[in-house]
Amino acid sequence: MRTIYWENCIKMIDQTKLPDELEILEIRNVDDLVSAIKRLSIRGAPALEAAGGYGVALACIEREFDSFEDFLKYVSERASSLANARPTAVNLSVGVERVLRKVKAASSIEEARKLAVQEAEKIAEEDVFRNRLMGSFGAKLIEDGDSILTICNTGSLATVEWGTALGVIRSAKLEGKNIRVFACETRPLNQGSRLTTWELINDGIDVTLITDSMAGIVMQKGMVDKVIVGADRIVSDGVFNKIGTYTLAVLAKEHGIPFFVAAPLTTFDWEKKMDDVVIEERDADELRYCHVKCKNCRIAPENVKVYNPAFDSTPLSYVSALITEKGVIFPPYDESVPKVLKSKEFINR
Amino acid sequence: MRTIYWENCIKMIDQTKLPDELEILEIRNVDDLVSAIKRLSIRGAPALEAAGGYGVALACIEREFDSFEDFLKYVSERASSLANARPTAVNLSVGVERVLRKVKAASSIEEARKLAVQEAEKIAEEDVFRNRLMGSFGAKLIEDGDSILTICNTGSLATVEWGTALGVIRSAKLEGKNIRVFACETRPLNQGSRLTTWELINDGIDVTLITDSMAGIVMQKGMVDKVIVGADRIVSDGVFNKIGTYTLAVLAKEHGIPFFVAAPLTTFDWEKKMDDVVIEERDADELRYCHVKCKNCRIAPENVKVYNPAFDSTPLSYVSALITEKGVIFPPYDESVPKVLKSKEFINR
Repeated sequence: MRTIYWENCIKMIDQTKLPDELEILEIRNVDDLVSAIKRLSIRGAPALEAAGGYGVALACIEREFDSFEDFLKYVSERASSLANARPTAVNLSVGVERVLRKVKAASSIEEARKLAVQEAEKIAEEDVFRNRLMGSFGAKLIEDGDSILTICNTGSLATVEWGTALGVIRSAKLEGKNIRVFACETRPLNQGSRLTTWELINDGIDVTLITDSMAGIVMQKGMVDKVIVGADRIVSDGVFNKIGTYTLAVLAKEHGIPFFVAAPLTTFDWEKKMDDVVIEERDADELRYCHVKCKNCRIAPENVKVYNPAFDSTPLSYVSALITEKGVIFPPYDESVPKVLKSKEFINR
Repeated sequence: MRTIYWENCIKMIDQTKLPDELEILEIRNVDDLVSAIKRLSIRGAPALEAAGGYGVALACIEREFDSFEDFLKYVSERASSLANARPTAVNLSVGVERVLRKVKAASSIEEARKLAVQEAEKIAEEDVFRNRLMGSFGAKLIEDGDSILTICNTGSLATVEWGTALGVIRSAKLEGKNIRVFACETRPLNQGSRLTTWELINDGIDVTLITDSMAGIVMQKGMVDKVIVGADRIVSDGVFNKIGTYTLAVLAKEHGIPFFVAAPLTTFDWEKKMDDVVIEERDADELRYCHVKCKNCRIAPENVKVYNPAFDSTPLSYVSALITEKGVIFPPYDESVPKVLKSKEFINR
């Protein structure tokens, strides 16, 4: 089942309801999509790319227009509000821009609407295809019997289907390798405990839930062979990913454990550096209350000050390899990454 | 206000109710005390030492006896069940043993009851006194303007009064130093977000709550000058403390940040090594539901496998100094610690 798809409107799994309920949201306008993205009903960089694309398609059909000029003005404005729904992942705006380009190149509203849906569907198809490729390449790094630690959710739910880091684990399993996964719960919104464990149990992959703070002990006790994480943005000196990733990278280095990042090439923003990227800070109540689902269960004083960055950045020196749909990229990244990025087959910015 | 005290029975703050309600429990028998300890209504190694002492006093008075022999048999049996309520912290059994010795040395039930209460009160008084001493010694390591990261709760609530690691912060503040604290929320039971922030806000000390997974980013960004944690047991090659402590130690080392452990000498179990100590593993539901207070809010699949150690061990090589009531102990610990332990003034095992 796909995380997000098109059926005259956007349909997508409401990830805030998991693992309790599998509810499909029907989104019929960009405002609702922006709200859904902000409250993390859909999240994960590749899934956001598809959402960005479908969102522009939605903007094209959400009302009638007097002229093509009016239409273009409206869609461009909606596209920009959509692209800014979350600031750190580059993929959301990549999806938006890609469909918007098609819209602008059209010669009529009707044609633009058709092209927008087509292009958004293409983004989704490409995501599925490249996740499978990434999985195959990445699976070569995994050995039979490996115990793999991961954070956040990088599976089907973070993409259109299959997943990035979890896609690599799925592909390894598909190749017949026996894999054990440690899923960090991923505070404060528990994507690890709510989503990753749910996906892996459904797939019959051995998974053990730990708190983020247990990453140290499981590495110290030799219970982890590899760490694989996803990425929200990869710049020329580091990887932006879910808060807690950097801590895992430091721990992996200290214990001599390989640390892999799996992400499609659209995640790369190689002209930028870590200092150029704004890290989204989220609502303090995410730490003051136990969970998005349970606003009544306060776990901290009402007035306590909170620092709540959604992402952190891991310098590339901590990263053993980058797993992409074009193959596994090894250091030195300042040489190896530009070579891969030059072949534009899968990059349609 | 004291965390635990004696008023013809044990009275203690129910820490599972904080920060919502300040409720005082009245405990009138050892069974209830064991339950309270197991569900963490009282926790923190030094507070458990006092609880162990008061618990034996309770055993002495909770029913009538036909003979001194019956009395001793009963109290010894209750003492042993109490000492085993939690396996990792050595302090609980230290408190139990210390009062039990007085009971055994008595010549009548009446005398034993009197001595038991006296000795338990002495344990509590000594804890307050040594925490103040520890605070004064430790405060010398803290500079004006320091930003200090800590985990779990090591304050008044973890002791009888004042605290260990938080006691050092309190003493530094008392000396007029400006201190900023980052409190790790301390999953899965959130002692950091529920208790430490509550104590520090009450004391007017600047505190910012973070998830455990944010320890990396705050160190990377230069926002932390020192890490101070407590300890549940210190053996000759490492420190047992709340799960997540080892991760902080590795991060502190990577960033060149001093890592201090504050603990009374009763926490030292120097004849033992890390491998000799059993780490308590707690109920899987602590990770499957958001919180002890809220059993209805499920945040993971019902059937998910969980690894839930309550403590981890940090090799002493990561520890910059040990702060005790006899002064600050610096490496090499195999030389410096035995010297301090030899002076038995504060150790009454």
